[in-house]
Amino acid sequence: MEYDQLLQMFLDHQGEYLSGEEISNRLGISRTAVWKQINKLREQGYDFEAVSRKGYRLVHQPDKLKHLDVVKALQGCQYGGQLKLLETTTSTQEEIRIWADQGADNGALVIAEEQTLGRGRQGRRWMSPSGKGVWMSLLLKPELPLADASRLTLLTAVAVCRALRSITGLEIGIKWPNDLLINGKKICGILVESAGEDGKIRYCVVGIGIDVNLEAQDYAEELSHRATSLKIEGNQNYDRAVIIGAVMKEMEFLMTSFLEQGFSTIANLWEALSVTLGKTITVRTYQGEMIGVAEELDSSGGLKLRKPDGNIEIVYSGEI
Amino acid sequence: MEYDQLLQMFLDHQGEYLSGEEISNRLGISRTAVWKQINKLREQGYDFEAVSRKGYRLVHQPDKLKHLDVVKALQGCQYGGQLKLLETTTSTQEEIRIWADQGADNGALVIAEEQTLGRGRQGRRWMSPSGKGVWMSLLLKPELPLADASRLTLLTAVAVCRALRSITGLEIGIKWPNDLLINGKKICGILVESAGEDGKIRYCVVGIGIDVNLEAQDYAEELSHRATSLKIEGNQNYDRAVIIGAVMKEMEFLMTSFLEQGFSTIANLWEALSVTLGKTITVRTYQGEMIGVAEELDSSGGLKLRKPDGNIEIVYSGEI
Repeated sequence: MEYDQLLQMFLDHQGEYLSGEEISNRLGISRTAVWKQINKLREQGYDFEAVSRKGYRLVHQPDKLKHLDVVKALQGCQYGGQLKLLETTTSTQEEIRIWADQGADNGALVIAEEQTLGRGRQGRRWMSPSGKGVWMSLLLKPELPLADASRLTLLTAVAVCRALRSITGLEIGIKWPNDLLINGKKICGILVESAGEDGKIRYCVVGIGIDVNLEAQDYAEELSHRATSLKIEGNQNYDRAVIIGAVMKEMEFLMTSFLEQGFSTIANLWEALSVTLGKTITVRTYQGEMIGVAEELDSSGGLKLRKPDGNIEIVYSGEI
Repeated sequence: MEYDQLLQMFLDHQGEYLSGEEISNRLGISRTAVWKQINKLREQGYDFEAVSRKGYRLVHQPDKLKHLDVVKALQGCQYGGQLKLLETTTSTQEEIRIWADQGADNGALVIAEEQTLGRGRQGRRWMSPSGKGVWMSLLLKPELPLADASRLTLLTAVAVCRALRSITGLEIGIKWPNDLLINGKKICGILVESAGEDGKIRYCVVGIGIDVNLEAQDYAEELSHRATSLKIEGNQNYDRAVIIGAVMKEMEFLMTSFLEQGFSTIANLWEALSVTLGKTITVRTYQGEMIGVAEELDSSGGLKLRKPDGNIEIVYSGEI
């Protein structure tokens, strides 16, 4: 409570110093309490300059997604019609899975400012610091066979790649099956988890993590060679609400195309954005390693690999 | 406590009357307490005859699965190596799903005497009265693409059908995709639920419900035309532990065959046991109704339907 009022005071007096005494009088709390509230705001990413005999001055506000901004960015889009915007969560994938089991609709969307246990593929951790990325999970309930789940992985990569290219103008490519790269470094991870009954999809949860406004120092050294952000590559801050809106609109457009006209359009788009096709690659699958030239997508969403002996092998999941 | 001792007294004196006074003296509890404990046993399916001046006589024991019997029946089988035998649960599918998320191994098995919210396909209720059926769920973690989940449905139908035929000698057939029938009535339901990541199976939970020793009066009238039990058809009680062991051994045998040699053997077994092939059927799928002659399984586990116009359509899930 006091803490909202305190923040409002600073927002009303931007650039000005407010003395501890003044604040304490206006809010009717002790000076120790003022100091505690300021520290709470600091934990949330607000920065204050403290000058003796002058008081405190707000010098930095964190980038916060506002519900209204997200809703505006999603206008005209069915996806996100059910929307949860969370300050923090262990993982948006877990949040939406619980929501799905409670009956959330097709298109339900969970966005978090921060994930404390964000997950990538194969159980790996996904770093999701507060306020700097788009960490979100979308619920899809398409009437499709389970065999199509791997196509949804490819479709999501196309949707995010197209949305980010159109917003940033950066040369973003898709590494099979679903990593997005700029100059060989990863800027987005996608994780599609499915729940099925017999041969049919019950629901899919599409997890999307985009490194938007992370700075170089946000990456540990071992990560900095493999990962980057839109801000680092584009030298500017990007509006996360706009990115969320653009990605959801692309997702909805491509899903409609898939359900109404089949997968070939999406396969073509994927191939055009791919940085994998035409290269000799090594794929680690659970059946072992395979080397070959990535030729094209096959009709079911697998990757056609021409092996050194000339034979074609189709791989559906693995690690390049 | 007292209640275990009380039961043991009756088991030690089968066919004899035990007076309330005698019991009360031996267990050191009041006669009212004796009466309460006897009622508790009655709730569990034990039946007593009460004759004044003689006392109580045990006249019926419920059929209870004993842990040791199940373990013995599973000897030589990897499946069931992690085993939970529950008195009652809402649903063995939910139990094993939670267990899977907590890290249960391939082959973990949950068996319940009774399910209070047993589920069949498409969210339907599955009647699972206490002590009369095999209600169980098996966890599988095969390294297979998600597209193979529908094959696991067919494989399970073959496994259960073969196990029950060999134990009962009854003419049991498979109705596509996975109902088991005797004389057109259902005696077993199978529900395979999958969790996947991208194109790959993370785990499958195979739910199997077999109506073993249900009596005619256990079926509501609207069910009695469509469902039956092994006891009704075979005119005898069957040992549920033996059935569990036989089904698990068949499952393990067929899974090994599938993983090592591919699906064609299992497809052949399925076709040989099918009561669907060669018949003109109507399939309700989410794309609408389709009429045609069921010709054979296709290589991916779908059913090939020859439509009246001569075209072949492959269906992966639906209702006949």
